[in-house]
Amino acid sequence: MRDLRIQPDRLWDSLMEMALIGATPRGGCNRQALTDEDRRGRELFIRWCRAIGCDVRIDGIGNIFCRREGSYPELPPVLIGSHLDTQPTGGRFDGVYGVLAGVEVLRTLEGNGVGTRRAVEVVSWTNEEGARFPPALMGSGVWSGAFDLKEMYRTTDKNGAAVSDELERIGFKGSTPARPAPVEAAFEVHIEQGPILEQEGLQIGVVTGVQGLRWYDVAIEGEACHAGPTPMERRRDPFTALAPIIEECYGLADRFAPWSRVTFGDIQAVPGSRNTVPEKLLVHLDIRHADAGILDEMDALLRQAVARECDKRGLTGTVEERWHMPVTRFDPACIDAVWQATRRLGYGAMEMASGAGHDSVYVAGVAPTSMIFVPCENGISHNEAESAKREDLEAGANVLLHAVMQMAS
Amino acid sequence: MRDLRIQPDRLWDSLMEMALIGATPRGGCNRQALTDEDRRGRELFIRWCRAIGCDVRIDGIGNIFCRREGSYPELPPVLIGSHLDTQPTGGRFDGVYGVLAGVEVLRTLEGNGVGTRRAVEVVSWTNEEGARFPPALMGSGVWSGAFDLKEMYRTTDKNGAAVSDELERIGFKGSTPARPAPVEAAFEVHIEQGPILEQEGLQIGVVTGVQGLRWYDVAIEGEACHAGPTPMERRRDPFTALAPIIEECYGLADRFAPWSRVTFGDIQAVPGSRNTVPEKLLVHLDIRHADAGILDEMDALLRQAVARECDKRGLTGTVEERWHMPVTRFDPACIDAVWQATRRLGYGAMEMASGAGHDSVYVAGVAPTSMIFVPCENGISHNEAESAKREDLEAGANVLLHAVMQMAS
Repeated sequence: MRDLRIQPDRLWDSLMEMALIGATPRGGCNRQALTDEDRRGRELFIRWCRAIGCDVRIDGIGNIFCRREGSYPELPPVLIGSHLDTQPTGGRFDGVYGVLAGVEVLRTLEGNGVGTRRAVEVVSWTNEEGARFPPALMGSGVWSGAFDLKEMYRTTDKNGAAVSDELERIGFKGSTPARPAPVEAAFEVHIEQGPILEQEGLQIGVVTGVQGLRWYDVAIEGEACHAGPTPMERRRDPFTALAPIIEECYGLADRFAPWSRVTFGDIQAVPGSRNTVPEKLLVHLDIRHADAGILDEMDALLRQAVARECDKRGLTGTVEERWHMPVTRFDPACIDAVWQATRRLGYGAMEMASGAGHDSVYVAGVAPTSMIFVPCENGISHNEAESAKREDLEAGANVLLHAVMQMAS
Repeated sequence: MRDLRIQPDRLWDSLMEMALIGATPRGGCNRQALTDEDRRGRELFIRWCRAIGCDVRIDGIGNIFCRREGSYPELPPVLIGSHLDTQPTGGRFDGVYGVLAGVEVLRTLEGNGVGTRRAVEVVSWTNEEGARFPPALMGSGVWSGAFDLKEMYRTTDKNGAAVSDELERIGFKGSTPARPAPVEAAFEVHIEQGPILEQEGLQIGVVTGVQGLRWYDVAIEGEACHAGPTPMERRRDPFTALAPIIEECYGLADRFAPWSRVTFGDIQAVPGSRNTVPEKLLVHLDIRHADAGILDEMDALLRQAVARECDKRGLTGTVEERWHMPVTRFDPACIDAVWQATRRLGYGAMEMASGAGHDSVYVAGVAPTSMIFVPCENGISHNEAESAKREDLEAGANVLLHAVMQMAS
């Protein structure tokens, strides 16, 4: 068992075969949730799992569970999961790698006649990306109880097509209830979607959790006036506070580096006329940190900075929180299983927090969970240029195999 | 003739009636160029002028000339002009006052049976604000030969509607050629749009010229990436250069005070998604100065600042000049006519340069021109709260009446 390894060529070939479904001209994938391409991807996945001898269950939100039975069927299984849907101009690895690495783990166990005490299930979660139907993480969110199934059914894409109808149309509105039975451990292997492993020359990221995230609407209000006749000292110009607020926010990122993120994603001036001092600026701000306490501190300092810089200039600053995704801490036993597998296999590794959300965030709410990251080229994802090396994909799948074997035995 | 005065209540009532067209909830006006509201404003103006017995001509760019004939029709007329279009959240006086004070001058002459040797024409210039269709001063710019008519026709608003089509749609693409015949003198009365007259307790600003102005599109380009996994030091985030560029531009305003102006009127992030570092920021910048040499120096320093701050951060900065309105000096004889009228009527007055561009800038290129300012509350304009006192509006219209009578006799 210690010498068991996945077959890297078989894994790669599966990835490339799946990548043909929804292939884009620039080498990426467009396989958005509940489209015909998604259906074809799902059918291919099921065909592969049936060939290994798996039982297939589909739940009410279309999540697909492929189960290789253990010697003690009554014991809670070990779960391997990720997603097959992509962004409109997505890549060939984001999500797909996690599902097909799961298939490769099952093939390896089966091909080597290795039994496990617990069943091992590979899950493909519905609509992780949320690109067609927001919110993201829909399938795992419903399954874990974070989202209401009926509400998700009513969600429509921009052409008015509803999730419920599209699930039926592609034949994946399953009969199994979308709620968790007990799970022993859950793992997800994923490309990092950031540049750190590549930079550090390491093959494995032992993911200890997911950064917490706060979304804000920041408004800076002054007074509109004419750009010409109004002397500078008579103005209440929101841009005068914007500059120091930007500087202070980036200062927070520096102060709490390296696991801090500050992103100004969008900005709007009202009324937005070239020769009028705007009465208001609206800024969309995204801050993240892997440590919940620090994220709270960043929140407080951000609010202070906006208030202070606006007060100084006779402006009104307001900070409205639009979303707070708390820091996720993965399960110590699952993290430890990943570490043990990594050491046993001799891969270079580091602990890290995920900067992006994943299905594992919701799974972690109801089951012991952790994640494994592998490098991707230049940290690029959500992009047709997304790329990863065969040997890194191999390393991640081997770590997955060994962590799963440990928890399933 | 020396005792002739306009009727302040009639002037006020006309202003308030016009203000109903495009009235905004906060007491301002939204009557942007070539909208249905603009059409209704134009129709009301024409109805009033026809009631006085004026001939109405409309030229190819939609400028409306309402002419009260003189006893020597072959002599060049005296022009009174301003504009009826407003900012998206504009006030009730900016521009409108100049047109309706002209109507009031004609009504006063007509009502008192006062003939003039020269014809007097009241002009409403098309699209002075440029809020919907840049550039500003479009109608007077085309008429005076500063802008090309065909090029202006092709100009589109942000929904893709073209000036030419919108002129036709509202029925104001006229048949008179948009070019000047000889003009004896041109006057424009306008609210100051600044706080100086109010501060000095004076009713009349004798305007000797207009500050020069430059409009820029500043683009700061970096690279889009995911707000979560991408470490701060790996980003090429255009917002990091925005803050110092803002600071440096306001620094230029300080350095060349008090006749300098720096305004960031609008800003846009591309793609403008909350959890994506923007690949590009587009900023609309307006700088002004009363001294042509200093304005050139500000231009050079601004370009250096953008280049330097972008270079430092691996970003690409471009500064594209969209408009340059040189410093304008008005005609000494017209300025003198305003001074004589002011003294004769006994109003407190001072000489000043306009901080805003006005149609008179272009008119001054082809005809002897000057302007008259009256105070507005707190110097506020381009704002729904824009306000002016009846007695000040009355004073400005009386000075206009007497200056026009002098030049038309």
